[in-house]
Amino acid sequence: MNVMRMAEFAWQRMEPQEGHYDFDWLHLVVEKLGKAGIATILGTPTPTPPAWLTERYPEVLIVADVAAGVRAQHGARAHACQNNPVYRELGAGVVTRLAEGFGRDPNVIGWQVDNEVYATNCRCPVCVRKFRERLRAKYGSIDALNQAWGLGTWSQCFQSFEQIPFPRKDTWHHPSLKNAWSSFQSDSAVEHVMAQVAILRRLTKGQPIGTDMMQWPGVNHFDMNQGLDVVQYNHYDTMQNLWESIFLCDSYRPLKARPFWCTETSTCWNGGTTAGGGYREPGFCRVNSWLPIALGGEANLYWLWRSHGSGQELMHGSVISSCGRPLHIFGEVQEIARGFRAASGFLNEMRPVVSPVALHLSTRSWEMSWAQPMVQNFSYNRQLLDVYHLLLQLQLRPDVIHPAAALDAYRVIVSPCLTMLDEGGLRERLRTWIEAGGTWVTGPLTDVRTIEASKFTHAPFGSLEEWAGVYCKYDIPADPRGFSMRWADGTESKGSIWHSGFELRGAEALATYTENELAGLAAVTCRRMGKGRVIALGTMLPPEEMTRLLQRLTSEAGIEPVATASANVLVAPRTGAAEGMVVVEHEHKPGSLTLPQPMTDLLTGKRHEGVVALEPYAVMVLKA
Amino acid sequence: MNVMRMAEFAWQRMEPQEGHYDFDWLHLVVEKLGKAGIATILGTPTPTPPAWLTERYPEVLIVADVAAGVRAQHGARAHACQNNPVYRELGAGVVTRLAEGFGRDPNVIGWQVDNEVYATNCRCPVCVRKFRERLRAKYGSIDALNQAWGLGTWSQCFQSFEQIPFPRKDTWHHPSLKNAWSSFQSDSAVEHVMAQVAILRRLTKGQPIGTDMMQWPGVNHFDMNQGLDVVQYNHYDTMQNLWESIFLCDSYRPLKARPFWCTETSTCWNGGTTAGGGYREPGFCRVNSWLPIALGGEANLYWLWRSHGSGQELMHGSVISSCGRPLHIFGEVQEIARGFRAASGFLNEMRPVVSPVALHLSTRSWEMSWAQPMVQNFSYNRQLLDVYHLLLQLQLRPDVIHPAAALDAYRVIVSPCLTMLDEGGLRERLRTWIEAGGTWVTGPLTDVRTIEASKFTHAPFGSLEEWAGVYCKYDIPADPRGFSMRWADGTESKGSIWHSGFELRGAEALATYTENELAGLAAVTCRRMGKGRVIALGTMLPPEEMTRLLQRLTSEAGIEPVATASANVLVAPRTGAAEGMVVVEHEHKPGSLTLPQPMTDLLTGKRHEGVVALEPYAVMVLKA
Amino acid sequence: MNVMRMAEFAWQRMEPQEGHYDFDWLHLVVEKLGKAGIATILGTPTPTPPAWLTERYPEVLIVADVAAGVRAQHGARAHACQNNPVYRELGAGVVTRLAEGFGRDPNVIGWQVDNEVYATNCRCPVCVRKFRERLRAKYGSIDALNQAWGLGTWSQCFQSFEQIPFPRKDTWHHPSLKNAWSSFQSDSAVEHVMAQVAILRRLTKGQPIGTDMMQWPGVNHFDMNQGLDVVQYNHYDTMQNLWESIFLCDSYRPLKARPFWCTETSTCWNGGTTAGGGYREPGFCRVNSWLPIALGGEANLYWLWRSHGSGQELMHGSVISSCGRPLHIFGEVQEIARGFRAASGFLNEMRPVVSPVALHLSTRSWEMSWAQPMVQNFSYNRQLLDVYHLLLQLQLRPDVIHPAAALDAYRVIVSPCLTMLDEGGLRERLRTWIEAGGTWVTGPLTDVRTIEASKFTHAPFGSLEEWAGVYCKYDIPADPRGFSMRWADGTESKGSIWHSGFELRGAEALATYTENELAGLAAVTCRRMGKGRVIALGTMLPPEEMTRLLQRLTSEAGIEPVATASANVLVAPRTGAAEGMVVVEHEHKPGSLTLPQPMTDLLTGKRHEGVVALEPYAVMVLKA
Repeated sequence: MNVMRMAEFAWQRMEPQEGHYDFDWLHLVVEKLGKAGIATILGTPTPTPPAWLTERYPEVLIVADVAAGVRAQHGARAHACQNNPVYRELGAGVVTRLAEGFGRDPNVIGWQVDNEVYATNCRCPVCVRKFRERLRAKYGSIDALNQAWGLGTWSQCFQSFEQIPFPRKDTWHHPSLKNAWSSFQSDSAVEHVMAQVAILRRLTKGQPIGTDMMQWPGVNHFDMNQGLDVVQYNHYDTMQNLWESIFLCDSYRPLKARPFWCTETSTCWNGGTTAGGGYREPGFCRVNSWLPIALGGEANLYWLWRSHGSGQELMHGSVISSCGRPLHIFGEVQEIARGFRAASGFLNEMRPVVSPVALHLSTRSWEMSWAQPMVQNFSYNRQLLDVYHLLLQLQLRPDVIHPAAALDAYRVIVSPCLTMLDEGGLRERLRTWIEAGGTWVTGPLTDVRTIEASKFTHAPFGSLEEWAGVYCKYDIPADPRGFSMRWADGTESKGSIWHSGFELRGAEALATYTENELAGLAAVTCRRMGKGRVIALGTMLPPEEMTRLLQRLTSEAGIEPVATASANVLVAPRTGAAEGMVVVEHEHKPGSLTLPQPMTDLLTGKRHEGVVALEPYAVMVLKA
Repeated sequence: MNVMRMAEFAWQRMEPQEGHYDFDWLHLVVEKLGKAGIATILGTPTPTPPAWLTERYPEVLIVADVAAGVRAQHGARAHACQNNPVYRELGAGVVTRLAEGFGRDPNVIGWQVDNEVYATNCRCPVCVRKFRERLRAKYGSIDALNQAWGLGTWSQCFQSFEQIPFPRKDTWHHPSLKNAWSSFQSDSAVEHVMAQVAILRRLTKGQPIGTDMMQWPGVNHFDMNQGLDVVQYNHYDTMQNLWESIFLCDSYRPLKARPFWCTETSTCWNGGTTAGGGYREPGFCRVNSWLPIALGGEANLYWLWRSHGSGQELMHGSVISSCGRPLHIFGEVQEIARGFRAASGFLNEMRPVVSPVALHLSTRSWEMSWAQPMVQNFSYNRQLLDVYHLLLQLQLRPDVIHPAAALDAYRVIVSPCLTMLDEGGLRERLRTWIEAGGTWVTGPLTDVRTIEASKFTHAPFGSLEEWAGVYCKYDIPADPRGFSMRWADGTESKGSIWHSGFELRGAEALATYTENELAGLAAVTCRRMGKGRVIALGTMLPPEEMTRLLQRLTSEAGIEPVATASANVLVAPRTGAAEGMVVVEHEHKPGSLTLPQPMTDLLTGKRHEGVVALEPYAVMVLKA
Repeated sequence: MNVMRMAEFAWQRMEPQEGHYDFDWLHLVVEKLGKAGIATILGTPTPTPPAWLTERYPEVLIVADVAAGVRAQHGARAHACQNNPVYRELGAGVVTRLAEGFGRDPNVIGWQVDNEVYATNCRCPVCVRKFRERLRAKYGSIDALNQAWGLGTWSQCFQSFEQIPFPRKDTWHHPSLKNAWSSFQSDSAVEHVMAQVAILRRLTKGQPIGTDMMQWPGVNHFDMNQGLDVVQYNHYDTMQNLWESIFLCDSYRPLKARPFWCTETSTCWNGGTTAGGGYREPGFCRVNSWLPIALGGEANLYWLWRSHGSGQELMHGSVISSCGRPLHIFGEVQEIARGFRAASGFLNEMRPVVSPVALHLSTRSWEMSWAQPMVQNFSYNRQLLDVYHLLLQLQLRPDVIHPAAALDAYRVIVSPCLTMLDEGGLRERLRTWIEAGGTWVTGPLTDVRTIEASKFTHAPFGSLEEWAGVYCKYDIPADPRGFSMRWADGTESKGSIWHSGFELRGAEALATYTENELAGLAAVTCRRMGKGRVIALGTMLPPEEMTRLLQRLTSEAGIEPVATASANVLVAPRTGAAEGMVVVEHEHKPGSLTLPQPMTDLLTGKRHEGVVALEPYAVMVLKA
């Protein structure tokens, strides 16, 4: 162990009474650790305002209860309003002192702002006023807002910004209101973090700043990281969904050139007052710890070192127990540390190879699938993960990028169900990228909403018909019935989620519906656009067909899988002074990998060539 | 298309500021449509008070939250209190101006008051005061109420009317309180509509007035239509439950001599922010549109013509899309219109044949199955629909009538689980009708409660023992175990829901229990009463036995099925200058029908005789 | 019928206006019954304050809604705050008058205080203040509380007792706070009852006092009965779980030397506004009525004699219907009464044999499994009942005792999942008892929490490692995977709930884990401790293994099953002037019993010997 992350909940110890600060205890710990060769990452303690604070300033407590207006109470965490000026000011006070005390401490190698910042949905008067001011600033006049949101229906028009309500669970709200609120929530979270970043920037020297994020919808992580130095994230994936943690790495790595930090993960089980997440077989901790490193991270920290002896999280797995005994994974943790050390030279010198494939992840589309799900059983997140999983299994692991991200590095971009193209100004950049040679695979339900969460008025899509060379004759939801289609080679398959039936206006049909009103209309089309092309999915394909299509399109774009390996084996190639790869079996099954050239496993020193068999949960760091 | 229904949510456009009215835009639309041969049905816009109204008069907002007393908010619909005098007055204002403007407009052929009026369960001070005043008026003294409701138990007696609470979800209330509240809710809804009817009556000339009803429990539709001219209703049935829409027609047609209007139905799918209800196969729209016409309606209107481009209902199916493209059912809609035109002469001249069978539908019994379910898994509505479905399949489709409806037209009346006989003064009229020759089939759990929702004190039933010639020895709930019984012919079957075990006091046993304490007691009895007879079911019969019993009893009453046809085929006979029938296959299966005489299908001009095979979702208008 | 229980809800009739009492009607009834040879048990009417009371003193109403602070309302029962001084004072008023009126009435043979007293979770200002005062009294300083609860984490420390919140559903609370609150709830209920007991003691003469308890968690029934004379309880078990009613008797009998009273049970079905619990086959009422008598009770009262004609409970089963007709179980009830009479001499003279086996039931551990469940799907109650059920089937029916109960009478004590040993000062008494020769079978998850709901800091257990002679190497939750273990005889089985893996420090391994990190560690151990021994379960055993273990351990302790009988037959031996037993078949199956000597059934007069076959639901009272 060479780094300890701490202090993100210690406001009470740092400021036992208002304006009386005490950091001596923390200096002692940081120094002691430093002397033992252990660096410190410090968290700002704003998630847990002390009892004296919320007692004296109860107005900082979140108004979380939808209808009744009841304030949150002391005794949990993240119960103060991110927008509240008093909370901001008192938070700034403690953060300032903390930064003054440790901003130049050589033992402190990084900062974490707050903890797992999320959308609080606070409806206190401060938030409501700020929401209205934000809308006034954006729309100028209330009529412009009425117009933009289409509030004519149901006499919903407002006569003034003061009339605009916040969303409540007991009201059937207009989706554009919910969309605006959700966007406000994300920006409030970012603003809360940035206020502290400004202080840390001023008072610290070179220690990278980040905030440990959870993959919850609600906060746009692209926005959040614009003003930060290092991407930090927490995850608690289990044996059942460990591949989703690969998805996370592929979504966090592209945010910054700098390697990301996995700031929290469990060694063995999760838990609050109840242990959860199931037992993890031997080797899980190894694989779970290596994945972030394999995929471009430079730190893997466990939460937590020593189990709590009391409190809300006393049943969480750890490295040593609350009474100081090593847990059953202690040996595995030691082995992992030895492996990191053995491979550190290689890992630090060789950079991960950038994928030529990207997959779009849109916070706005995700949020909208809650505010306006469009079709029953539709989960934006689920669709996205399913397509990602196919690419992962094809050894075509994509970068997972936000709409605002640059596109230049990619040759194929897949954008499933990307509801709106106007997030992050994507529309124009996408057009340019396609015309310059990119292959865009998208749909169904892509480009069907304006940034206001309304439909377009000229056509069912903003630009898709024009780009894809189609005319959408019919749109039919696919709940619960999917329509059959036939592919050029005669294969039959069935769509799901939604069916757009296209007439061809320049496109070629890759698959054509064969049923009812849709019979004869194209289900999947392809069209050249400049030097690139647009593949439009009118419906979601079943896994086999989606696999076939993605294989064909990447191959036509000159992209080869990074390895010949079984689907349960992650191969993360590295390049630089030498070639190599990190290899991880992550499904707890036997796996195999065919090496392009003989390579040495830095963890064992053993040389491999040809077909290599992998044990369940095997990890290798291979260098040519 | 020859009629457009509109304006029921347009209060904001009609009265953009308090007291400033603007109907020019509406006149323009009505005239434009009129010139195109399209008549208008106008809705009064009271479901959607504008934001200025609820901002200035927040007291009109419903207090819907059970315990916390929080008011509803602007941004949805039906959020104002039906009993609030300010809301009533402002509503009267806009309705008055609307009536003045369009009351004599020849293009306006009808009025719809408000929209889908339902029991709001508002608990605002106005409602609570009105509820108490209503009880004071009914009972005179608080002791009389204590007595009527049996409040002695649990020290529940009130000392004054001011102590009477409204029902809250977090209190285990007395069922008589809930019964009184539910009855108040229904009357409030009716009163709200009637206040507007009075204005429309005064200021319009001959345009029929109605209110578009949904088949929700809570509002007594018999009461509601007493003061209206035309029965209007909305329904959104799907492929799975389309036969329930036949039930609706059979319950709405008997309310008035005038043909009813189906004011809303979906062309293809339902939806709010999510499309729902499932895809409907080709022909569904045809069948769904023809059913109301076949069953005595004279209008079938779709909701909606053009999909919304934004808002809470933007995913609802329509005729043309929000960007103006015809939906996939457009051709079917055109075909339906042609069919209506082709058959219009026949339909207008021949009246539906009145059924000699009636089925009782009691709003009070339905409501009571919520306030006082009596036995687990009991659903009054489900029992009723099940018996209706059997009659439908037997081609003995009944009129579905309220307790207050006249009985003279019927020879057999079926009243399953008719908890109370004192709704609409039924008891005496029913006695007279039976004695005059009617066959009454009823039970189980019929006549077991007073109008106050209490048990009778002299016997388990009000009159049933006397009428049916039985003495109820034992009552045993049937959850989850049903008891066996044997029929005269030796058939065995099992009861459900409830078991009354009868000793015979003049009746004949049709079936006798064979198990445990009930062994030897009658389960189903028959007794002559004057010229008629009473068939008492001590338990609910399984479908086969109920079918056999209903067949036998109708046959003995000289009633023949209206057709020889498969169970999935609706045959709706017409009579008048000529004979004929409308035939609809409504289960999406092949069907068949044996014609009594050769007939011509007015939709195709084709002549049929003998056994006619029907395609799934076939519709024929046959004239002898 | 020779006893009637009544008046527990009749406050309104006793005190129609504040300070105006009327007991004439009650005297009339009591006298009338007395003349008919029927004694009376009187309930104090405090569960149902009249409407005038809650109207004039609304502050007595419970604040039950977690976050919103809304008060309960008139119209149900148990809606007043047990801690409220006004409610206490007015309650004392009516109880005083009642006691004055009937305290020496020879027809009144007992008192029931209030009704089914439970933890109300009232959060009114009185309760909150009292909770804080209680904590101040217990901890002295707020720092001591912070320390005891471990509030350092998450800045949870309080600076004053006034900051301590009451638990709310919308806050993720510290488990020690919830533990303290739950303990406060139990004590409040006891205090509420004891306030009335003090009055009754003063004004009555010798009539035994009790309170009719329901087996809900939340109130410690050991504490409750300390100041009472007779254990009273209500139960409504069904055909499915009738054996749990044996558990109840075995937990209530040890509370007092005096025979307990079953104050409420159903004759045939349960119900509120809905009948529930299912039909009960003939004989159920017999068996259900005999069980308390067989197991040491001296009264079995039905609720209710006559069904209500209205109100919240009008669908409850009874002896006669609301209109006065006998229910189908009437004959069975008569037969039961005859049986009681026939056996009364025997029952009154012979005492139940005290079991040498005890099973611990801890209210605190039960409550903690809600506040801090430790592992998913863990139910303290379920585990306890499962072990009880095995002992019952082995004819080794234990006394079910609270931690505070004396241990001397027992040779084997089973304490499954006894989270804390410091309830009722058990730790020291248990040590002494074991050293004196007792066999203690315990685990998993026994002795893992302090009385403050925290972990121990020196070891995973308080004393268990020392007593059991083990060192717990690893603790691993068992959700959902159980680990295999091997027994000395080679049998394999799998653990559940939790796995502690023990190294032996003086103990012998009875079973050893064979998988993964636990392989080689002991799963079940046995160690001599003084003259006794400690059997520690590191994991919960499957039923077959637990059965085998319990059989072996009791046999080694010289304990024989009370009878050779099939598992569905309860044999309750009696001893005294003669030997005998009450025999009850309680699973509605044929059963058998081998008699040690010829005996006579006092119910039939028939003599039995050798193997006796029992019909389903048979009852015999056998005397040698």
